[in-house]
Amino acid sequence: MQGVVPAIVIGRLPIYLRALALLESEGKEVTSSQELGMRLGISSAQIRKDLSHFGEFGKQGTGYKISFLQERLKEILNLNQNWSVALVGFGDLGNAIVHYAGFPAKGFFIKAVFDIAPHKVGQTINGHNLIIKHPDDMAEVIQQEEIKIAILAVPIKAAQSVSEALVKAGIKAILNYAPINLFLPPDIQVQNIDPVVYLQQMTYYL
Amino acid sequence: MQGVVPAIVIGRLPIYLRALALLESEGKEVTSSQELGMRLGISSAQIRKDLSHFGEFGKQGTGYKISFLQERLKEILNLNQNWSVALVGFGDLGNAIVHYAGFPAKGFFIKAVFDIAPHKVGQTINGHNLIIKHPDDMAEVIQQEEIKIAILAVPIKAAQSVSEALVKAGIKAILNYAPINLFLPPDIQVQNIDPVVYLQQMTYYL
Repeated sequence: MQGVVPAIVIGRLPIYLRALALLESEGKEVTSSQELGMRLGISSAQIRKDLSHFGEFGKQGTGYKISFLQERLKEILNLNQNWSVALVGFGDLGNAIVHYAGFPAKGFFIKAVFDIAPHKVGQTINGHNLIIKHPDDMAEVIQQEEIKIAILAVPIKAAQSVSEALVKAGIKAILNYAPINLFLPPDIQVQNIDPVVYLQQMTYYL
Repeated sequence: MQGVVPAIVIGRLPIYLRALALLESEGKEVTSSQELGMRLGISSAQIRKDLSHFGEFGKQGTGYKISFLQERLKEILNLNQNWSVALVGFGDLGNAIVHYAGFPAKGFFIKAVFDIAPHKVGQTINGHNLIIKHPDDMAEVIQQEEIKIAILAVPIKAAQSVSEALVKAGIKAILNYAPINLFLPPDIQVQNIDPVVYLQQMTYYL
Protein backbone atom coordinates (compact mmCIF):
# COMPACT_ATOMS: atom_id res chain seq x y z
CA MET A 1 0.00 0.00 0.00
CA GLN A 2 2.76 2.52 -0.87
CA GLY A 3 1.60 5.06 -3.47
CA VAL A 4 1.29 8.72 -2.54
CA VAL A 5 1.14 9.04 1.24
CA PRO A 6 -0.75 12.13 2.44
CA ALA A 7 1.52 14.94 3.64
CA ILE A 8 -0.30 14.99 6.98
CA VAL A 9 0.75 11.37 7.57
CA ILE A 10 4.37 12.15 6.67
CA GLY A 11 4.14 15.08 9.06
CA ARG A 12 3.37 12.75 11.96
CA LEU A 13 6.20 10.28 11.32
CA PRO A 14 8.93 12.48 12.87
CA ILE A 15 6.72 12.86 15.95
CA TYR A 16 6.48 9.07 16.23
CA LEU A 17 10.23 8.83 15.77
CA ARG A 18 10.82 11.38 18.53
CA ALA A 19 8.52 9.50 20.91
CA LEU A 20 10.23 6.19 20.09
CA ALA A 21 13.67 7.67 20.83
CA LEU A 22 12.37 8.85 24.18
CA LEU A 23 10.84 5.46 25.01
CA GLU A 24 14.15 3.83 24.09
CA SER A 25 16.05 6.25 26.32
CA GLU A 26 13.78 5.10 29.14
CA GLY A 27 15.03 1.56 28.57
CA LYS A 28 11.94 0.21 26.81
CA GLU A 29 12.25 -2.25 23.93
CA VAL A 30 8.64 -2.74 22.90
CA THR A 31 5.73 -0.35 22.60
CA SER A 32 2.18 -0.33 21.27
CA SER A 33 0.01 2.04 19.28
CA GLN A 34 -1.91 2.59 22.55
CA GLU A 35 1.21 3.65 24.47
CA LEU A 36 2.45 5.86 21.63
CA GLY A 37 -1.01 7.37 21.31
CA MET A 38 -1.17 8.15 25.03
CA ARG A 39 2.22 9.85 24.84
CA LEU A 40 1.28 11.93 21.86
CA GLY A 41 -2.40 12.62 22.33
CA ILE A 42 -3.15 10.81 19.06
CA SER A 43 -5.57 7.88 18.80
CA SER A 44 -4.04 4.41 18.52
CA ALA A 45 -6.23 3.78 15.45
CA GLN A 46 -4.71 6.83 13.77
CA ILE A 47 -1.19 5.61 14.48
CA ARG A 48 -1.92 2.13 13.12
CA LYS A 49 -3.52 3.65 10.03
CA ASP A 50 -0.56 5.98 9.46
CA LEU A 51 1.94 3.14 9.75
CA SER A 52 -0.12 0.83 7.53
CA HIS A 53 0.84 3.03 4.57
CA PHE A 54 4.31 1.51 4.82
CA GLY A 55 3.58 -2.16 5.40
CA GLU A 56 3.56 -4.35 8.50
CA PHE A 57 5.39 -3.20 11.62
CA GLY A 58 4.22 -5.56 14.32
CA LYS A 59 2.09 -8.60 14.96
CA GLN A 60 -1.45 -8.18 16.26
CA GLY A 61 -1.27 -8.08 20.05
CA THR A 62 2.53 -8.14 20.42
CA GLY A 63 3.17 -4.45 19.84
CA TYR A 64 6.06 -2.83 18.01
CA LYS A 65 9.74 -3.53 18.55
CA ILE A 66 11.02 -0.01 19.18
CA SER A 67 14.43 -0.39 17.51
CA PHE A 68 12.87 -1.95 14.40
CA LEU A 69 10.15 0.69 14.10
CA GLN A 70 12.73 3.46 14.53
CA GLU A 71 14.93 1.98 11.81
CA ARG A 72 12.01 1.64 9.41
CA LEU A 73 10.80 5.20 10.06
CA LYS A 74 14.32 6.52 9.53
CA GLU A 75 14.52 4.64 6.24
CA ILE A 76 11.16 6.01 5.13
CA LEU A 77 12.15 9.58 6.02
CA ASN A 78 15.62 9.24 4.43
CA LEU A 79 17.32 9.69 7.79
CA ASN A 80 19.80 6.84 7.40
CA GLN A 81 22.31 9.39 6.21
CA ASN A 82 23.66 12.71 7.43
CA TRP A 83 22.34 15.86 5.79
CA SER A 84 24.39 18.98 5.13
CA VAL A 85 22.54 22.21 5.79
CA ALA A 86 23.16 25.83 4.79
CA LEU A 87 22.11 28.61 7.12
CA VAL A 88 21.34 32.05 5.73
CA GLY A 89 21.17 34.89 8.24
CA PHE A 90 23.45 35.05 11.26
CA GLY A 91 21.50 37.30 13.62
CA ASP A 92 20.31 36.25 17.09
CA LEU A 93 18.21 33.45 15.62
CA GLY A 94 20.95 32.26 13.26
CA ASN A 95 23.33 32.18 16.20
CA ALA A 96 20.91 30.02 18.21
CA ILE A 97 20.44 27.71 15.23
CA VAL A 98 24.18 27.18 14.71
CA HIS A 99 24.67 26.32 18.38
CA TYR A 100 21.56 24.12 18.73
CA ALA A 101 22.80 20.62 19.55
CA GLY A 102 19.51 19.08 18.41
CA PHE A 103 20.45 19.39 14.73
CA PRO A 104 23.70 17.35 14.67
CA ALA A 105 22.19 14.91 17.18
CA LYS A 106 19.63 14.03 14.51
CA GLY A 107 22.04 14.02 11.57
CA PHE A 108 21.65 17.60 10.33
CA PHE A 109 25.01 19.36 10.05
CA ILE A 110 25.33 23.04 9.27
CA LYS A 111 28.12 23.19 6.72
CA ALA A 112 27.78 26.76 5.47
CA VAL A 113 26.63 30.05 6.97
CA PHE A 114 25.85 33.18 4.98
CA ASP A 115 25.22 36.75 6.04
CA ILE A 116 25.27 39.99 4.11
CA ALA A 117 26.63 42.21 6.94
CA PRO A 118 30.22 43.27 6.12
CA HIS A 119 31.34 42.99 9.77
CA LYS A 120 30.15 39.37 9.93
CA VAL A 121 31.52 38.08 6.62
CA GLY A 122 34.86 36.33 7.15
CA GLN A 123 34.34 35.78 10.89
CA THR A 124 34.71 32.32 12.41
CA ILE A 125 31.78 31.09 14.48
CA ASN A 126 32.74 30.30 18.08
CA GLY A 127 33.24 26.62 18.71
CA HIS A 128 32.42 25.66 15.14
CA ASN A 129 34.65 25.20 12.16
CA LEU A 130 32.55 27.63 10.15
CA ILE A 131 33.40 30.91 8.47
CA ILE A 132 30.54 33.26 7.65
CA LYS A 133 30.40 33.83 3.91
CA HIS A 134 28.81 36.46 1.72
CA PRO A 135 25.63 35.44 -0.13
CA ASP A 136 27.52 36.05 -3.40
CA ASP A 137 29.37 32.79 -2.67
CA MET A 138 26.14 30.83 -2.08
CA ALA A 139 25.94 28.99 -5.40
CA GLU A 140 29.59 27.94 -5.32
CA VAL A 141 29.60 26.73 -1.70
CA ILE A 142 26.25 24.94 -1.91
CA GLN A 143 27.27 23.08 -5.05
CA GLN A 144 30.71 22.26 -3.68
CA GLU A 145 29.33 20.91 -0.39
CA GLU A 146 26.39 19.22 -2.16
CA ILE A 147 23.93 20.89 0.20
CA LYS A 148 20.24 20.28 -0.46
CA ILE A 149 18.68 21.81 2.68
CA ALA A 150 18.74 25.43 3.81
CA ILE A 151 17.54 27.21 6.92
CA LEU A 152 16.34 30.74 6.24
CA ALA A 153 16.76 33.15 9.16
CA VAL A 154 16.74 36.49 7.34
CA PRO A 155 14.41 39.49 7.67
CA ILE A 156 11.03 39.40 5.85
CA LYS A 157 12.18 41.76 3.12
CA ALA A 158 15.07 39.53 2.08
CA ALA A 159 13.29 36.19 2.40
CA GLN A 160 11.81 35.81 -1.09
CA SER A 161 14.91 36.88 -3.03
CA VAL A 162 17.27 34.84 -0.84
CA SER A 163 15.07 31.77 -1.18
CA GLU A 164 15.11 32.14 -4.97
CA ALA A 165 18.90 32.38 -4.92
CA LEU A 166 19.04 29.25 -2.75
CA VAL A 167 16.88 27.34 -5.21
CA LYS A 168 19.04 28.52 -8.08
CA ALA A 169 22.08 27.24 -6.17
CA GLY A 170 20.56 23.77 -5.92
CA ILE A 171 18.67 23.83 -2.60
CA LYS A 172 15.62 21.50 -2.59
CA ALA A 173 14.22 22.09 0.90
CA ILE A 174 13.92 25.26 2.98
CA LEU A 175 13.09 25.64 6.64
CA ASN A 176 11.79 29.20 6.65
CA TYR A 177 11.87 31.26 9.85
CA ALA A 178 10.90 34.51 8.09
CA PRO A 179 7.22 35.24 8.81
CA ILE A 180 6.17 35.27 5.16
CA ASN A 181 4.96 32.75 2.60
CA LEU A 182 7.58 32.04 -0.05
CA PHE A 183 6.68 31.61 -3.75
CA LEU A 184 8.87 28.83 -5.05
CA PRO A 185 8.62 26.08 -7.67
CA PRO A 186 6.33 23.24 -6.54
CA ASP A 187 9.17 20.71 -6.37
CA ILE A 188 10.87 22.73 -3.60
CA GLN A 189 9.94 21.64 -0.07
CA VAL A 190 9.19 24.48 2.32
CA GLN A 191 8.29 24.37 6.01
CA ASN A 192 7.53 27.54 7.92
CA ILE A 193 8.24 28.29 11.56
CA ASP A 194 6.56 31.48 12.70
CA PRO A 195 6.20 31.55 16.50
CA VAL A 196 3.65 34.37 16.33
CA VAL A 197 1.31 32.14 14.33
CA TYR A 198 1.53 29.51 17.08
CA LEU A 199 0.84 32.09 19.79
CA GLN A 200 -2.15 33.41 17.87
CA GLN A 201 -3.55 29.90 17.51
CA MET A 202 -3.57 29.66 21.29
CA THR A 203 -5.00 33.09 22.17
CA TYR A 204 -8.21 32.03 20.41
CA TYR A 205 -8.80 29.64 23.31
CA LEU A 206 -7.81 32.02 26.13
CA MET B 1 -22.70 28.97 12.40
CA GLN B 2 -20.41 29.47 15.44
CA GLY B 3 -20.25 26.33 17.61
CA VAL B 4 -16.97 24.46 17.98
CA VAL B 5 -14.67 25.45 15.15
CA PRO B 6 -12.16 22.73 14.20
CA ALA B 7 -8.63 23.39 15.49
CA ILE B 8 -7.27 23.06 11.96
CA VAL B 9 -9.44 26.02 10.89
CA ILE B 10 -8.28 28.11 13.86
CA GLY B 11 -4.73 27.15 12.88
CA ARG B 12 -5.14 28.77 9.47
CA LEU B 13 -6.59 32.09 10.71
CA PRO B 14 -3.20 33.54 11.81
CA ILE B 15 -1.84 32.66 8.36
CA TYR B 16 -4.70 34.59 6.74
CA LEU B 17 -4.03 37.49 9.10
CA ARG B 18 -0.35 37.50 8.19
CA ALA B 19 -1.15 37.52 4.47
CA LEU B 20 -3.68 40.34 4.94
CA ALA B 21 -1.10 42.46 6.80
CA LEU B 22 1.30 41.94 3.93
CA LEU B 23 -1.31 42.85 1.30
CA GLU B 24 -2.12 45.99 3.31
CA SER B 25 1.57 46.91 3.49
CA GLU B 26 1.58 46.70 -0.32
CA GLY B 27 -1.12 49.38 -0.37
CA LYS B 28 -4.06 47.12 -1.21
CA GLU B 29 -7.48 47.72 0.33
CA VAL B 30 -9.51 44.84 -1.06
CA THR B 31 -8.68 41.21 -1.66
CA SER B 32 -10.45 38.00 -2.63
CA SER B 33 -10.37 34.39 -1.54
CA GLN B 34 -8.69 33.70 -4.91
CA GLU B 35 -5.88 36.18 -4.27
CA LEU B 36 -5.37 35.01 -0.68
CA GLY B 37 -5.41 31.41 -1.87
CA MET B 38 -2.79 32.10 -4.52
CA ARG B 39 -0.56 33.77 -1.93
CA LEU B 40 -0.88 30.92 0.52
CA GLY B 41 -1.18 27.85 -1.65
CA ILE B 42 -4.63 27.16 -0.20
CA SER B 43 -7.76 26.77 -2.35
CA SER B 44 -10.15 29.72 -2.42
CA ALA B 45 -13.00 27.34 -1.51
CA GLN B 46 -11.12 26.33 1.64
CA ILE B 47 -10.62 29.94 2.65
CA ARG B 48 -14.31 30.78 2.11
CA LYS B 49 -15.32 27.68 4.07
CA ASP B 50 -12.97 28.54 6.93
CA LEU B 51 -14.27 32.09 7.16
CA SER B 52 -17.90 30.99 6.92
CA HIS B 53 -17.57 29.56 10.45
CA PHE B 54 -17.58 33.15 11.70
CA GLY B 55 -20.34 34.76 9.62
CA GLU B 56 -20.30 36.94 6.52
CA PHE B 57 -17.13 38.78 5.54
CA GLY B 58 -17.80 40.07 2.05
CA LYS B 59 -20.43 40.24 -0.66
CA GLN B 60 -20.39 37.72 -3.48
CA GLY B 61 -18.18 39.10 -6.23
CA THR B 62 -16.90 42.19 -4.40
CA GLY B 63 -14.17 40.52 -2.36
CA TYR B 64 -13.08 41.27 1.18
CA LYS B 65 -12.23 44.67 2.60
CA ILE B 66 -8.77 43.98 4.00
CA SER B 67 -8.98 46.26 7.06
CA PHE B 68 -12.38 44.84 8.03
CA LEU B 69 -11.31 41.22 7.62
CA GLN B 70 -8.16 41.89 9.65
CA GLU B 71 -10.17 43.46 12.46
CA ARG B 72 -12.62 40.58 12.53
CA LEU B 73 -9.87 37.94 12.56
CA LYS B 74 -8.10 39.81 15.38
CA GLU B 75 -11.34 39.87 17.35
CA ILE B 76 -11.90 36.16 16.77
CA LEU B 77 -8.33 35.30 17.83
CA ASN B 78 -8.46 37.65 20.86
CA LEU B 79 -5.74 39.84 19.41
CA ASN B 80 -7.44 43.16 20.13
CA GLN B 81 -5.37 43.32 23.30
CA ASN B 82 -1.73 43.00 24.24
CA TRP B 83 -0.58 39.75 25.80
CA SER B 84 2.07 39.44 28.48
CA VAL B 85 4.40 36.51 28.03
CA ALA B 86 6.84 34.72 30.33
CA LEU B 87 10.00 33.18 28.89
CA VAL B 88 11.66 30.28 30.67
CA GLY B 89 15.21 29.47 29.62
CA PHE B 90 17.69 32.15 28.64
CA GLY B 91 20.18 30.24 26.53
CA ASP B 92 20.95 31.02 22.87
CA LEU B 93 17.35 30.41 21.88
CA GLY B 94 15.91 32.38 24.82
CA ASN B 95 18.19 35.25 23.87
CA ALA B 96 16.92 35.19 20.26
CA ILE B 97 13.33 35.08 21.50
CA VAL B 98 13.72 38.09 23.81
CA HIS B 99 15.24 40.14 21.01
CA TYR B 100 12.83 39.04 18.28
CA ALA B 101 10.94 42.16 17.16
CA GLY B 102 8.14 40.05 15.69
CA PHE B 103 6.58 39.38 19.11
CA PRO B 104 5.94 42.97 20.29
CA ALA B 105 5.00 43.96 16.74
CA LYS B 106 2.08 41.56 17.03
CA GLY B 107 1.12 42.43 20.61
CA PHE B 108 3.10 39.80 22.53
CA PHE B 109 5.30 41.37 25.20
CA ILE B 110 7.83 39.38 27.20
CA LYS B 111 7.34 40.61 30.74
CA ALA B 112 9.31 38.02 32.70
CA VAL B 113 12.37 35.86 32.01
CA PHE B 114 13.45 32.92 34.13
CA ASP B 115 16.64 30.88 34.15
CA ILE B 116 18.10 28.54 36.72
CA ALA B 117 21.79 29.36 36.06
CA PRO B 118 23.21 31.32 39.04
CA HIS B 119 25.36 33.53 36.79
CA LYS B 120 22.29 34.61 34.81
CA VAL B 121 19.85 35.26 37.67
CA GLY B 122 19.77 38.96 38.54
CA GLN B 123 21.26 40.11 35.24
CA THR B 124 19.53 42.74 33.14
CA ILE B 125 18.86 41.82 29.51
CA ASN B 126 20.54 44.18 27.05
CA GLY B 127 18.17 46.75 25.61
CA HIS B 128 15.22 45.45 27.58
CA ASN B 129 13.84 46.43 30.94
CA LEU B 130 13.99 42.82 32.09
CA ILE B 131 15.85 41.17 34.93
CA ILE B 132 16.37 37.41 34.73
CA LYS B 133 14.71 35.75 37.71
CA HIS B 134 15.06 32.37 39.36
CA PRO B 135 12.29 29.83 38.64
CA ASP B 136 11.51 29.89 42.38
CA ASP B 137 9.93 33.30 41.77
CA MET B 138 7.79 32.04 38.88
CA ALA B 139 4.45 31.77 40.68
CA GLU B 140 4.73 35.19 42.30
CA VAL B 141 5.82 37.04 39.15
CA ILE B 142 3.34 35.34 36.85
CA GLN B 143 0.43 36.06 39.16
CA GLN B 144 1.56 39.63 39.77
CA GLU B 145 1.94 40.38 36.05
CA GLU B 146 -1.21 38.39 35.21
CA ILE B 147 0.67 36.41 32.59
CA LYS B 148 -1.26 33.65 30.82
CA ILE B 149 1.22 32.68 28.09
CA ALA B 150 4.68 31.16 28.47
CA ILE B 151 7.45 30.31 26.03
CA LEU B 152 9.46 27.28 27.05
CA ALA B 153 13.08 27.29 25.87
CA VAL B 154 14.65 24.88 28.37
CA PRO B 155 16.47 21.56 27.80
CA ILE B 156 14.40 18.39 27.27
CA LYS B 157 15.06 17.11 30.78
CA ALA B 158 13.60 20.19 32.45
CA ALA B 159 10.65 20.72 30.10
CA GLN B 160 7.98 18.60 31.79
CA SER B 161 8.63 19.78 35.36
CA VAL B 162 8.97 23.43 34.33
CA SER B 163 5.74 23.25 32.33
CA GLU B 164 3.93 21.82 35.36
CA ALA B 165 5.26 24.66 37.52
CA LEU B 166 4.08 27.15 34.91
CA VAL B 167 0.59 25.69 34.91
CA LYS B 168 0.54 25.77 38.71
CA ALA B 169 1.51 29.44 38.52
CA GLY B 170 -1.50 30.21 36.33
CA ILE B 171 -0.17 29.82 32.78
CA LYS B 172 -2.86 28.70 30.29
CA ALA B 173 -0.87 28.47 27.04
CA ILE B 174 2.66 27.24 26.37
CA LEU B 175 4.76 27.62 23.24
CA ASN B 176 7.14 24.70 23.70
CA TYR B 177 10.55 24.74 22.01
CA ALA B 178 11.80 21.65 23.88
CA PRO B 179 11.70 18.65 21.52
CA ILE B 180 9.37 16.60 23.72
CA ASN B 181 5.63 16.15 24.14
CA LEU B 182 4.37 17.68 27.39
CA PHE B 183 1.72 15.97 29.52
CA LEU B 184 -0.52 18.73 30.83
CA PRO B 185 -4.20 19.12 31.76
CA PRO B 186 -6.46 19.25 28.69
CA ASP B 187 -7.49 22.87 29.30
CA ILE B 188 -3.87 24.01 28.81
CA GLN B 189 -3.03 25.07 25.26
CA VAL B 190 0.30 23.76 23.96
CA GLN B 191 2.00 24.37 20.64
CA ASN B 192 5.31 22.72 19.81
CA ILE B 193 8.13 24.09 17.69
CA ASP B 194 10.74 21.45 16.96
CA PRO B 195 12.79 22.41 13.89
CA VAL B 196 14.13 18.86 13.54
CA VAL B 197 10.59 17.57 13.02
CA TYR B 198 10.16 20.07 10.17
CA LEU B 199 13.46 19.06 8.58
CA GLN B 200 12.53 15.37 8.82
CA GLN B 201 9.20 16.05 7.13
CA MET B 202 11.12 17.43 4.17
CA THR B 203 13.84 14.79 3.85
CA TYR B 204 11.09 12.29 3.03
CA TYR B 205 10.68 14.08 -0.30
CA LEU B 206 14.39 14.50 -1.09
